[in-house]
Amino acid sequence: MQTYLDCIPCFIRQSLDAVKLATDNQKVQEQIIHHALDLAGKMDFCSSPPAMAQIIHRKIRTLVKNDDPYKQKKQHFNEFALSLFPKFKDLIANSEKPFEAAIRLAIAGNIIDLGVISSLGLPEAECVINNALIDSFDATEIGRFKTEAENAKDILYLADNAGEIVFDRFLIEQIGADKITFVVKGSAVINDATIDDSRAAGLTDIVKVIDNGDDAPGTILESCSKYFQERFKKADLIISKGQGNYETLSRVRQNIYFILKAKCPVIARDIGCEIGHMILQKSKA
Amino acid sequence: MQTYLDCIPCFIRQSLDAVKLATDNQKVQEQIIHHALDLAGKMDFCSSPPAMAQIIHRKIRTLVKNDDPYKQKKQHFNEFALSLFPKFKDLIANSEKPFEAAIRLAIAGNIIDLGVISSLGLPEAECVINNALIDSFDATEIGRFKTEAENAKDILYLADNAGEIVFDRFLIEQIGADKITFVVKGSAVINDATIDDSRAAGLTDIVKVIDNGDDAPGTILESCSKYFQERFKKADLIISKGQGNYETLSRVRQNIYFILKAKCPVIARDIGCEIGHMILQKSKA
Repeated sequence: MQTYLDCIPCFIRQSLDAVKLATDNQKVQEQIIHHALDLAGKMDFCSSPPAMAQIIHRKIRTLVKNDDPYKQKKQHFNEFALSLFPKFKDLIANSEKPFEAAIRLAIAGNIIDLGVISSLGLPEAECVINNALIDSFDATEIGRFKTEAENAKDILYLADNAGEIVFDRFLIEQIGADKITFVVKGSAVINDATIDDSRAAGLTDIVKVIDNGDDAPGTILESCSKYFQERFKKADLIISKGQGNYETLSRVRQNIYFILKAKCPVIARDIGCEIGHMILQKSKA
Repeated sequence: MQTYLDCIPCFIRQSLDAVKLATDNQKVQEQIIHHALDLAGKMDFCSSPPAMAQIIHRKIRTLVKNDDPYKQKKQHFNEFALSLFPKFKDLIANSEKPFEAAIRLAIAGNIIDLGVISSLGLPEAECVINNALIDSFDATEIGRFKTEAENAKDILYLADNAGEIVFDRFLIEQIGADKITFVVKGSAVINDATIDDSRAAGLTDIVKVIDNGDDAPGTILESCSKYFQERFKKADLIISKGQGNYETLSRVRQNIYFILKAKCPVIARDIGCEIGHMILQKSKA
């Protein structure tokens, strides 16, 4: 997905949120916001939004001298999601449509991200997830996706955020973990899941986990490791979680299923859905 | 009020909203956003946010060759507010506390601004206003304000937005229109009320209306006309409506009562209230 004019205020807002989390030093905060404004002014609308975010978050980490400012937040997300895990494991076990329920929970994980989880308590988050289990959902793709997943021999599952990855376990188990490789980011960026997070969330115990060798909050193929690029090219099926992966892969010709909650109006417009919709969509590229 | 780092993303967002309303020309939209980013990068944190907004909105009007891009919106706001007027006039007439009800309606007018009115229909807007009549409201200032208003001989009532000014009529009538001068902007900026709007809203029929000679979305004294500056200095009491006037006058030593809804976190922090609170507050400067 290209970058739109509407992405600019969001980019500035996210940079400010990140820098306030990373440091209390006002001078450094101002320095980074000036850098973000400068970057936004030179924005290449042909690149995807995560390409811009990658640059500014590298700058933030350098200036605050901390290679993972979201470390504590991510630990909190993982622990929070793990505390909800047993309840939803039972729910899947007793579900009449466990495959659909697993997809719904994978999307629910994408909902309880930074913004929501930080302002909600456990009961409210449970409520958000329960809604994802009953919300209207264009499920026409489920059958096709299930068949493709059953027939595939080599599936890459591109992870999104810490915390959220706990909820990916259900879908991984439904599909069969033995043919899935779970892909996290090469190093920390915002609250995106890394190898450490996949370990904390228990993913490494059930599925093979690799990293993509890059620190963009999405999957910018040309910046990823050669090994990941090869794996991506050869895979039968790619499962892409979240907005960042959608933004970077929506124009890539591969057999990709995007699973996400359309949280921003620009992405909703690009997908052709209403804002807030839960999405399972095969790539049209 | 000074400008904070948090004002920057909002400033960019508002510039984008304004430019999208003013023109469909993508090139002009990009040009203005670049200008806004550039301006934000050079932002003087000692000036108030409306000082920045004044510059960018002048630029927008020049580039789109339209000296009042919000004209139609403002007409719509005025007509919308006028359609609600009779109902709330009756309500004041039958109220046990008409003075407090008039203040509450003046704040309600400040709620149904651009963002709300454009997405709500008539029943929902009525609901918003009804809530303002019963919402908790720190009313300790009301007694003091009422006494001061009764004793004052020369009151300036600084207007905020088109539409909203219809709801100022109740408070003007409660205080006594003969000692009030209603002040609008010198020329169009965003949806701020001008002389034309005060005429359309029926204000010119009940109270003396002047303009401040400036086009900032607030009251930047040094940019206003000499005549307005003199009137401001001599007035016994200033009634200041809305966020823009608060942002520009909160540090000015005069006998000012601010009446507004604290719609943004920065202003809420500056006032020392929760976001969303209805405010009647005597200036502490």
